[in-house]
Amino acid sequence: MLALTILGNNSAVPAFGRNPTAQILQTLEESYLIDCGEGTQMQMARYKIRRSKISRIFISHLHGDHYFGLTGLLTSMSLLGRTQELHVYAPKELEEIISKQFEVAAAKLSYNLIFHAITTEGLLADDKTITVSAFKVKHRIECWGFLFKEKKKLRNIDIERVKAYEIPSSFYSKLQQGEDYINKKGTIIPNEEVTHSGVAPKSYAYCADTVYYESNIDNVKGVDLLYHEATYLQAHTERAIAHFHSTTVQAATIAQKAEVKKLLIGHFSSKYETLDEFVKEASAVFTNTELAIEGMCYKI
Amino acid sequence: MLALTILGNNSAVPAFGRNPTAQILQTLEESYLIDCGEGTQMQMARYKIRRSKISRIFISHLHGDHYFGLTGLLTSMSLLGRTQELHVYAPKELEEIISKQFEVAAAKLSYNLIFHAITTEGLLADDKTITVSAFKVKHRIECWGFLFKEKKKLRNIDIERVKAYEIPSSFYSKLQQGEDYINKKGTIIPNEEVTHSGVAPKSYAYCADTVYYESNIDNVKGVDLLYHEATYLQAHTERAIAHFHSTTVQAATIAQKAEVKKLLIGHFSSKYETLDEFVKEASAVFTNTELAIEGMCYKI
Repeated sequence: MLALTILGNNSAVPAFGRNPTAQILQTLEESYLIDCGEGTQMQMARYKIRRSKISRIFISHLHGDHYFGLTGLLTSMSLLGRTQELHVYAPKELEEIISKQFEVAAAKLSYNLIFHAITTEGLLADDKTITVSAFKVKHRIECWGFLFKEKKKLRNIDIERVKAYEIPSSFYSKLQQGEDYINKKGTIIPNEEVTHSGVAPKSYAYCADTVYYESNIDNVKGVDLLYHEATYLQAHTERAIAHFHSTTVQAATIAQKAEVKKLLIGHFSSKYETLDEFVKEASAVFTNTELAIEGMCYKI
Repeated sequence: MLALTILGNNSAVPAFGRNPTAQILQTLEESYLIDCGEGTQMQMARYKIRRSKISRIFISHLHGDHYFGLTGLLTSMSLLGRTQELHVYAPKELEEIISKQFEVAAAKLSYNLIFHAITTEGLLADDKTITVSAFKVKHRIECWGFLFKEKKKLRNIDIERVKAYEIPSSFYSKLQQGEDYINKKGTIIPNEEVTHSGVAPKSYAYCADTVYYESNIDNVKGVDLLYHEATYLQAHTERAIAHFHSTTVQAATIAQKAEVKKLLIGHFSSKYETLDEFVKEASAVFTNTELAIEGMCYKI
């Protein structure tokens, strides 16, 4: 199970009560923060997201609307007495900025902060139930997309059948992982005879900020949920190109070509007070599109 | 006329819907921002404070809850096309942090940002109707208080009397500034004969963050409004001392000894959900005390 909560859905200048980018992806085991615009810790309080649950933070790029809330959040975690280590993944220059901010504050964190500079595409984190990897998107400055993939789920044991085959319970965890059983007589009991497949592993891809960029298609191929920025409506395509952003139609085209299951659009420009047109335009190209709305939780 | 609007009244960790420190001081001519905690630009939007009106920003010290909203605000001003120059006064290390944040974002501001490192006590700004000066308060790191003083107001002309003395209107502006008039016969018409004193100039002093520090008394002597931090209730005096903060009673004692007209207390610790006790404790020592409440405008 993956669940995505939107904490900020606006582009650079906060407007109409909308906040800069931040999202929380939760698994049964972990809580990840994706980007951390100004005010993210206040948004977390508003939507009952516990700061203490976050184990890893991923920052896509160093435009302020994607990280100006970070050092405040890291400081609050310390003031609240966090002891669990915390991993931050971001373009390398961020480490210097954070360090300087802690230095001038004469701050000493209560926990171990481990900074990982993102320098190449590929695996960033390998947790119990999920892997996280980075891929390049195309923006005015270096910018990374993130792919969260659940690991293959354990198979479900058919209790009637394992008993019928007299398989000892000490072998159950191996059955869950797909192994066949060989009994005392040397007979192979195929795994499929005594287990059912579990729920299919889910995946989530995050693409912000990016111009329309066809390399993204391969990187997000077939995911269950794709978040793709759609800063502008189609009428402002030239502006989108000039600012290395995407339109509704471009985001939906990526979703369609990548054959994802569902598309979520966000990072709306402060030009627009209402968002109805965004979902209308994108849905015309890719039907299963939703707006990223602050406070909403999207089950994957 | 001076008017102070509170944008944030909480200490480091935002809590109970309260935000980190920021205040707007407005004169008829200017708008000053005092400290700029995370989310200040959102608070400005909430309380209809126009970003474009601000001409000078004063940052007391480099704990994040007093400046983490600054670079976001500066960026938004640029994205909204500001052309008017902007002055920022702060401890010198802030310049390096801001510069680095703009550098990694490949940002170029639309306006001229003039950074003034605060290094000694004394005059910071001399505007048409007001002067701003800095004084040292005592905190865990270098921290500055700010004193805003209206200049001597122009005297009001008594129209009946200037006509009776046949004083030409070309001399009126000199009368307003307090000069005597000498008529053609060489007779001196004393200024007091033909003018009334204007409204007394007002003053506002800002003391945050600071431990109880008696030097503050001289620095804020007799001001019309004193803002003094009161992070803790009296029961937590030891904690206040340990963290270089003040209690309600200490803030009120400074107000009383400095013989100020009115005291405003704020920077409340996240330990406290309600604030009634704060005003109760402080008022017992200095009667004319009010809580700094977000969104409230205090006329001086």
